[in-house]
Amino acid sequence: MSLLKEFDQRDPVEIGEQLHRFAAELYPICRSITGDGVRQTLAQINRRIPVQITEVPSGTAAFDWTVPREWNIRDAYIKDPAGKRVVDFQRSNLHVLNYSTPVRATLPLSELRKHLFTLPEHPDWIPYRTAYYKDAWGFCLPHNQMLALADGNYEVCIDSSLQDGHLTYGECYIPGSSADEVLISTHVCHPSLANDNLSGLTVATALAELLSGRDLRYSYRFLFIPGTIGAITWLARNRENVGRIRHGLVLTGIGDPGGFHYKKSRRGNAEVDQAAAHVLRHQDESWEILDFSPYGYDERQYCSPGFNLPVGCLMRSVWGTFPEYHTSADNLDFIRPKHMAASLRICTALVDVLENNRRYRNLSPYCEPQLGKRGLHRSSGGDVIGEEINARLWVLNFSDGDNSLLDITERSGLPFCTIKEAAELLCQGGLLATLPDVSERDTSKEDSDASSEVRGMPRARGIGARR
Amino acid sequence: MSLLKEFDQRDPVEIGEQLHRFAAELYPICRSITGDGVRQTLAQINRRIPVQITEVPSGTAAFDWTVPREWNIRDAYIKDPAGKRVVDFQRSNLHVLNYSTPVRATLPLSELRKHLFTLPEHPDWIPYRTAYYKDAWGFCLPHNQMLALADGNYEVCIDSSLQDGHLTYGECYIPGSSADEVLISTHVCHPSLANDNLSGLTVATALAELLSGRDLRYSYRFLFIPGTIGAITWLARNRENVGRIRHGLVLTGIGDPGGFHYKKSRRGNAEVDQAAAHVLRHQDESWEILDFSPYGYDERQYCSPGFNLPVGCLMRSVWGTFPEYHTSADNLDFIRPKHMAASLRICTALVDVLENNRRYRNLSPYCEPQLGKRGLHRSSGGDVIGEEINARLWVLNFSDGDNSLLDITERSGLPFCTIKEAAELLCQGGLLATLPDVSERDTSKEDSDASSEVRGMPRARGIGARR
Amino acid sequence: MSLLKEFDQRDPVEIGEQLHRFAAELYPICRSITGDGVRQTLAQINRRIPVQITEVPSGTAAFDWTVPREWNIRDAYIKDPAGKRVVDFQRSNLHVLNYSTPVRATLPLSELRKHLFTLPEHPDWIPYRTAYYKDAWGFCLPHNQMLALADGNYEVCIDSSLQDGHLTYGECYIPGSSADEVLISTHVCHPSLANDNLSGLTVATALAELLSGRDLRYSYRFLFIPGTIGAITWLARNRENVGRIRHGLVLTGIGDPGGFHYKKSRRGNAEVDQAAAHVLRHQDESWEILDFSPYGYDERQYCSPGFNLPVGCLMRSVWGTFPEYHTSADNLDFIRPKHMAASLRICTALVDVLENNRRYRNLSPYCEPQLGKRGLHRSSGGDVIGEEINARLWVLNFSDGDNSLLDITERSGLPFCTIKEAAELLCQGGLLATLPDVSERDTSKEDSDASSEVRGMPRARGIGARR
Repeated sequence: MSLLKEFDQRDPVEIGEQLHRFAAELYPICRSITGDGVRQTLAQINRRIPVQITEVPSGTAAFDWTVPREWNIRDAYIKDPAGKRVVDFQRSNLHVLNYSTPVRATLPLSELRKHLFTLPEHPDWIPYRTAYYKDAWGFCLPHNQMLALADGNYEVCIDSSLQDGHLTYGECYIPGSSADEVLISTHVCHPSLANDNLSGLTVATALAELLSGRDLRYSYRFLFIPGTIGAITWLARNRENVGRIRHGLVLTGIGDPGGFHYKKSRRGNAEVDQAAAHVLRHQDESWEILDFSPYGYDERQYCSPGFNLPVGCLMRSVWGTFPEYHTSADNLDFIRPKHMAASLRICTALVDVLENNRRYRNLSPYCEPQLGKRGLHRSSGGDVIGEEINARLWVLNFSDGDNSLLDITERSGLPFCTIKEAAELLCQGGLLATLPDVSERDTSKEDSDASSEVRGMPRARGIGARR
Repeated sequence: MSLLKEFDQRDPVEIGEQLHRFAAELYPICRSITGDGVRQTLAQINRRIPVQITEVPSGTAAFDWTVPREWNIRDAYIKDPAGKRVVDFQRSNLHVLNYSTPVRATLPLSELRKHLFTLPEHPDWIPYRTAYYKDAWGFCLPHNQMLALADGNYEVCIDSSLQDGHLTYGECYIPGSSADEVLISTHVCHPSLANDNLSGLTVATALAELLSGRDLRYSYRFLFIPGTIGAITWLARNRENVGRIRHGLVLTGIGDPGGFHYKKSRRGNAEVDQAAAHVLRHQDESWEILDFSPYGYDERQYCSPGFNLPVGCLMRSVWGTFPEYHTSADNLDFIRPKHMAASLRICTALVDVLENNRRYRNLSPYCEPQLGKRGLHRSSGGDVIGEEINARLWVLNFSDGDNSLLDITERSGLPFCTIKEAAELLCQGGLLATLPDVSERDTSKEDSDASSEVRGMPRARGIGARR
Repeated sequence: MSLLKEFDQRDPVEIGEQLHRFAAELYPICRSITGDGVRQTLAQINRRIPVQITEVPSGTAAFDWTVPREWNIRDAYIKDPAGKRVVDFQRSNLHVLNYSTPVRATLPLSELRKHLFTLPEHPDWIPYRTAYYKDAWGFCLPHNQMLALADGNYEVCIDSSLQDGHLTYGECYIPGSSADEVLISTHVCHPSLANDNLSGLTVATALAELLSGRDLRYSYRFLFIPGTIGAITWLARNRENVGRIRHGLVLTGIGDPGGFHYKKSRRGNAEVDQAAAHVLRHQDESWEILDFSPYGYDERQYCSPGFNLPVGCLMRSVWGTFPEYHTSADNLDFIRPKHMAASLRICTALVDVLENNRRYRNLSPYCEPQLGKRGLHRSSGGDVIGEEINARLWVLNFSDGDNSLLDITERSGLPFCTIKEAAELLCQGGLLATLPDVSERDTSKEDSDASSEVRGMPRARGIGARR
């Protein structure tokens, strides 16, 4: 049975609640681009799917970048002149400027203000701010709260550390028949923000669970990585292996009530772009296809011109376009079980298309084959033929080696599953033969040194030892 | 003079009436995919144009198909319990399920009903149904009549035969300067249905009459064939020769009052597709261009991926989209002389374009030639130039070897005949030279074994002996 | 500083008035396709920019054409029966059919009328008519005036000469770093018509002034030539050199209040076409891009199929579409200083784009380079990035050798200057390298015999001696 059909037999309410419960588990952890928050998050994921952890030392070069010092934080607060904790990291980890250097000082309000970040347009929300690659400390708080601060001396404490350590990322590899890979990448570096990106993390984890132990055409690699520096580091360490990535998807911000947005790969006409457009066209929520642009999430790195990988990005509301973005309002109420479940369904449908999108050759290309004598056509002479017979004619006519099932789907306007079932039936009837994967044919040169590539590519399962 | 201009000097009312009279002659004949109905029809056509008949024995293989047993019918009826012929083949040959096995029996109404076909949504019409490749018998009748049948025992008789014989088709070949061919294909297998396809048959016949004895660039092959099995059989017998088909058209359902529909060839950008679009754009009735789809008429076979011939399909109302389709309401009132005449005009215009669409080379390609000194330009300095001078400039500028006159027509927005006349005048003026046909240049390999091809291709005229 | 930014710092009112004053100086001169009117016009231009004059003898062959006899005129009039000059060349040179043969005669009104040209639909305007390549004489006058002429004998005098002489044209060559050229062509053959083409002449002259003495990438060749025969003669004499023309523009009718029209080169996708579309998209007036057609101004010759040069045409109102076209109403009131200034601005913007449109290579193509450590990115983690940083990401991502800055401009939707500044900054930052001009790479064969080409191409400055 197809992955999607199987998915659709499950209870979507339960799926959504499981996803949301997992997001709620991960919500309190204070994540950043390095540090124990990422490790705790990966450990939680590893309870559900086997995650191999990689630890890359601070100072390691990754293309134009360098792995930074590791950041960890235990506590942080501002005490008002009366000694009361008015801003408290224990209540929300967003209160601390992420990657703040440690500080312990007492200073007048006028000085303190230089270190405070607020959102005047949403005066009750805490903004999310970072200070990567910059020695700075600060606090984020609601604008109204800041306005209410009385003059006087404030005690500030950020009990953080910023020192040589590691950058941590996790991979879950699910092997398929082919060494060709589908890459699913999702960032794990944001603290208590639900849509950005516990939604991506939890859906990716659930998708990996769903694919585990199945007969798959492709191998699947799930990356749980810090944004930007994590993707860059992974690419630097796997530069020789990326030729195996046939399709890729960045998952982010897919738990909110907004319609779907799929941002195309830099190539613009990759199979994953075509497949995503098809899947979105055949579901009920609103959707939009966006052209590639070089700003956004880690597709920026996968689609940098040196790599130019066929990697798109699936979102619901686009980052920066909704008020909750990068604020404390992106919380567990902002993401909804039913939207998370629907996002997982889209991912499942996309995988289903990628798994089944092949090219076939019509073995009886001169005139139509006689479907009737094979029981593949009605023979009573009705006026109209059914969609399923029509699909067989489409598949036969366009299976000339050039057109994939997705191509035929687009020309015919029929759903992919109808076209796919027609192809399977015609194969069984001896009228159609599967062609070898284009990807495998086209990459013979890459395959020729596949042995050396295998070395760099982690295939082992389970949580790895920290070096 | 151009074919179209000559056509336009004739009286369209008379043309329409002639076409309709011929359709009325052919209307009563009970045609099927084999049998004497087809032979009688071809004999009538042969009175107007020379038709070479081919008889292919039952059991002959044609690609994936086999020529079926031949079907003939003399009489058929249902007698009610009172012995009255309530359903009578002599009144309408649609009453019999086409290709019914012979039957002679008496059976109660409840049993009889299993063999009756009606159209509840049009309760006074007889549906048209077939039972090809299936041992079955049945009757078609108005739904109201069926409802009125009283209980009792009914005598049924179908005096048909279904036995080894032949499949019959006819060809009319009109030779031109080139062995390259234009194929006009029309199906002859439907019984008393006027639009589907006496309209196609009569227009094709009239077009062949109109082309006979003229100096033509292309040779024209008119096929009068049973749908599906006829086209497949013809292709199987002429497989080596189809490379000669430069352009093709299936004619069907072109007598009703609906606007024109041209369904493009599978190639989608064949010259016949371009020419048909041009011709439809420059006439008064509504029209629409449809993309190729693998369901429809015999373009399905000509455009099967092994052949992929440049064959489109001209219709008025599209099959299956109008209520009269495949019912007794598709009768001689449904087709109208003026619509048949206008359809013939479209075909004539299309042939006119194909005959004249050539590529030329500007012999004076550096700057404009001085048209004035050749009397090809006004020299008095008026403000605006006429369309005919403008056409000369278009032809000169774009006759670089790449663009055909149709291409120039499309870029300029001018009518084809204006562009063609400009090209002729410029040729006479020594400013333009005709380029060899692309078709002839591109098919040198096919031409190299033209001698063997000729053998398979009937060129003789007149009705052939039945074997 | 960019040419456009510098231009925008000047006072547009003053620029417009200077252009209009120059047009007013040139307005009274009676120009034609040959003769002293052209020489006087070129001499006036030469006071502002160095113009090299070429004189080509009557009878010289130029492709399909021959340089005609030279036409000069001193006086012309019609005297009514009372001896009063009712039509007087001294009041408007449009009164004489341009290129009229000399005549001196007395004839009755009925005979005279055969030589009179009027505009019934604008009865108070004098039409502009010519009689090139045709022995004829005539007068043009307001229709109302003609109607008022009383019967009687009229004395007509056209004191013109039509004899062997020369065709005259001027060139202003402004050398740049590359021998590759931008051609700006404008016709100088119309008498007292302001928009057609004193607007083109004056804007071209001002553009040449603006470019003189600057460091330029391309060399610029301004042609001040009689329409048609002038362009044809120039092409005939420079046939071997036209390969150097990388971009070209015909300037005509750019002083009236109409919106801009840019007519694309025959190629349709030349860089100048892309640049003009960009420039028009980023200015305030209405504009339209027109497909190439083989009728119009001298782009007809530059874009004849033998040359097919990348030459477009910039107009405001399109010739023939406004009532003042080729009448005495196309006078100094019809063109407006502010529109002339805005047209010069468009030309400047276009040159600015052409000068700066290059291809670059991202030297750090694997992942994004770390802009922050180079001060090229904000590092405080705000929500939105500025347009200038976004431009850097666009330039980096698409500088893969295929895309020019204009291509990147189109994909990003950002203004060209923002993209260009991003590229310059990235070059300074060592992240980007300029690629050699495509033009220079692609024309190696043409360059190989560049030495012989140089001979035919005038590079000297200043007004040449008349032979």
